[in-house]
Formats: sequence, structure tokens, C-alpha cells
Amino acid sequence: MVINVNVEFLAKDATKAVGRGDLIIVIDVLRCSSTIVTALYNGARAIIPAKTLSEARKLRAKNPEYLLAGERGGLRPPDFDLGNSPLEYVREKVFGKTIILTTTSGTLALINSRGAKWVLVGSFLNARAVAEKAFSIACEEEVGISIIQAGTEGRFSLEDFICSGAILSRLPDESVGFSDSAQAALLAFRYAKNDLYANLMRSNHSKKLIKLGFGEDIKFSSQMDIYAIVPLFRGGIITKINSNY
Amino acid sequence: MVINVNVEFLAKDATKAVGRGDLIIVIDVLRCSSTIVTALYNGARAIIPAKTLSEARKLRAKNPEYLLAGERGGLRPPDFDLGNSPLEYVREKVFGKTIILTTTSGTLALINSRGAKWVLVGSFLNARAVAEKAFSIACEEEVGISIIQAGTEGRFSLEDFICSGAILSRLPDESVGFSDSAQAALLAFRYAKNDLYANLMRSNHSKKLIKLGFGEDIKFSSQMDIYAIVPLFRGGIITKINSNY
Repeated sequence: MVINVNVEFLAKDATKAVGRGDLIIVIDVLRCSSTIVTALYNGARAIIPAKTLSEARKLRAKNPEYLLAGERGGLRPPDFDLGNSPLEYVREKVFGKTIILTTTSGTLALINSRGAKWVLVGSFLNARAVAEKAFSIACEEEVGISIIQAGTEGRFSLEDFICSGAILSRLPDESVGFSDSAQAALLAFRYAKNDLYANLMRSNHSKKLIKLGFGEDIKFSSQMDIYAIVPLFRGGIITKINSNY
Repeated sequence: MVINVNVEFLAKDATKAVGRGDLIIVIDVLRCSSTIVTALYNGARAIIPAKTLSEARKLRAKNPEYLLAGERGGLRPPDFDLGNSPLEYVREKVFGKTIILTTTSGTLALINSRGAKWVLVGSFLNARAVAEKAFSIACEEEVGISIIQAGTEGRFSLEDFICSGAILSRLPDESVGFSDSAQAALLAFRYAKNDLYANLMRSNHSKKLIKLGFGEDIKFSSQMDIYAIVPLFRGGIITKINSNY
């Protein structure tokens, strides 16, 4: 069997992948998906994506023990516990916690993917782990794989594209059929991989983050395969995937 | 001055570039733009893109001396003089002729670009020539440059993406500001350029063309910088750009 593998460039195109019945991997390298992977690695119990600030605040009002996290315009709202920098999600702050997270693009891509049975979260940090898990589920369930790039303000984002290629590079070539967009991402990754950090720094979103003082987040998020964590989004909640799957 | 350079992945997005006031370069490597460049190189006087078969036939009825050319489903309609294979457009057939051309994706991208003052046609064959001309016009007129990929059946196409990168690689780095999509295309081209033919062969559209017996067209269209021809689409007609521009 050959697994069809596709890449969609925008959060709004998640619905196409849902329609195909594909397993979905959501990517928002800067910074939502890198943050989710890091939080789970550091022992967060669960992450609940919220679409709007007010939805996030309401959920917190009902659950005062949850942490309230996220950004608008890259910055932490003043009443929030955490922003959207993966470097903030250290063990001391997140271990055992449930985190309500609302971001501009990443949580939108997740929420648009809700109709799929399998929604995983990918980043450079867990590229190999998420690719291997996605492939094994896709073989088991006989479905395709679609990567959904969250993008930046509704537009194509370079860092998500390179990360798509990074994840695809961890799939077994001989058992997958890559779409044109998937092959394009693979080519870009193969050239960019010699200096991921420098290549991520060229993106429009990186330039904005640097201006806001988040340059270190880009460096951190460009590390490949450092965490063997696979986040699963199901029933409105993201948790570390259970090894029984 | 820095020239903003962008890439749009689909024919329908030409209208965005028109809205920005950009100079447009239309690409449909397999095969419309490769065919147009080859026809003009071999002395065709002009090419008139037509959206539909019936529009093309009507135009021909009024001008019996014109050649009728194009494809549907990759194949030449039986009453047409020429198909959409660049290899057909030899000097003996096209020198001094006006050609009515209707194709599935390429002519659509051209027609969607009509509102722009400058619409050039790009391919691997004329990558350097079209890049240099576009850059000099954009500097003169202080506008951005947008590459419009025709795509295949409304979808992202690998061969057009690699060709976008090929054209962008001929621009002077220090004087242009590449969008994320432009940078992505550049990365893919830089990896693919060591074997353009093999990389083009991986695309979905290539596989269809090979089935139809047009494998040689892919090989021909993957040659880079062999023609110093810059087609200009203006007033509904494509001609070789005048050296006065």
C-alpha cells in the first residue's frame, strides 16, 4: 500500500484534508506548535486550544487551576500567565498543568482540523517522532496524511513550509506518494537543512519576532528531532499520544 | 530602492498581483509558457491567448490565415493546426505566423493577469532573459514583481514552483525583497537545479504527459536559459518584447 501525502499551505485549507479523511499534522513552527511540543515534553498534562481571547478567559474563569496562555500580535495579553514563547514553558511552570492556549494562526489551524479523526501536532523539535507515528497510524487505518501549515496572518509561511519538508523527510520514501506540494517542501528542506536557523530567519514572521525581542525562540524552534513527543488533538484537548496507539 | 518580489501559486491569484500594481510574470512550464517562448524564438509574429475552444475557433473563422493551436486534456483538438507541445512549434510551421492558443491553465493565468500594465511570460528556457527584463522595468517604474504559477487544474504545481525559483535566482539578490513564497521557491530550485529534468519528472502533471506520450516535452522544457526571448502580453496579444522597452 502507498500512503498519499499532501501539504496544505494555509489554516483555512484544513477543511480540504478533513474532507479527504486524512490524518492531519498541524504545523505552526513560530511558535504555537513548537510551544505545544515543548509544554508536553516538560510535563504539561494537557493543552486546550481556544479560538478567541474571550473564549480562553471564560474557560479559565470556570477552571481557575488552569494556566491561561497565548498571544495577540506576538505578545502575551497582560492578564495571561504565559505568552507563546516555547522558552517560557519550563518544567517549573507547566509540569502537571492544563494550559488554555490561544494564538493567531496555530490554534485556528487546529480548530479547522477538528473534524478529522487524527490530528497530530508537528514542529522541527519532534519531526521524526510525529512522522513515524503518523505513518504507522496511516498504514493501520489506510488513510492519507495531510500536513496543514498554519501560515502567518492567512498567508504562506516559509518556516512552516521548510518544517513540512523536515517531517516528510522522515517518512519512508518507498511507501508514500508525495503530492506536488509535498515534493516542493521536501526540495526546500533538503537545501535549507544545512542551516535551518539561518533559513528560518529569512521569513517574514521571523523578522517580526526579532523586532519584538523573540529572536531566541527562532533559534530554539529550529532544533530538529530533539523531542520524541507526539501531541494528539482530540475532543478539544491536546495530550501526549498514548503509547497504546 | 528594493523591489518586492512575490510568488502566487495559482492562476486565480493573478488578480491579487494586479491589485498590487505589480509587473507579472506568468509561468506554465508544462507546457503553455514553454510553447509561447519557443514559438516566438522560431519567428512567430504573435500569439493570441483564447480562453475557450469556441472563442479560439471564432477568431480563426474571422482570420483564416492564423494558426489554431492548443489542447484540452493535453491533446490537440482534431480541427486544430497545432497542439501544446513546444516541439511542434518549429520555424517551418510558425515563422511569420499569428497563432491563436487555448490551453487549460496557462491561458487562464494570462487572461487573469490582463489588468496589469506589464505581463511577461516565463519558463526555464528564458529564465535569465525574463528575470533581467522584469527587474529593469520594475526599477524604472518602481513597482513590485509577481510570478503567477498557472498550476495544474487549479492546484499547486511542482514544475511551476521550481521554475519560479529558477527565474528568481537570476535577480540581483541585494536589490530585491523576497516574500516567503519567493524564498521557498528559491530554496527548492537550488536543490533541484542539479537535475532539473529528474525533478520535473516527479510532478503530477509530468506523469500525465508521459502517459499521453509527451515525455520529450518535459525534457525540452527543462533546459534553462537557452532563449533570450521575453514575451510581452498586452492588448490581448503576446509578442516578443521590443528592445525599446
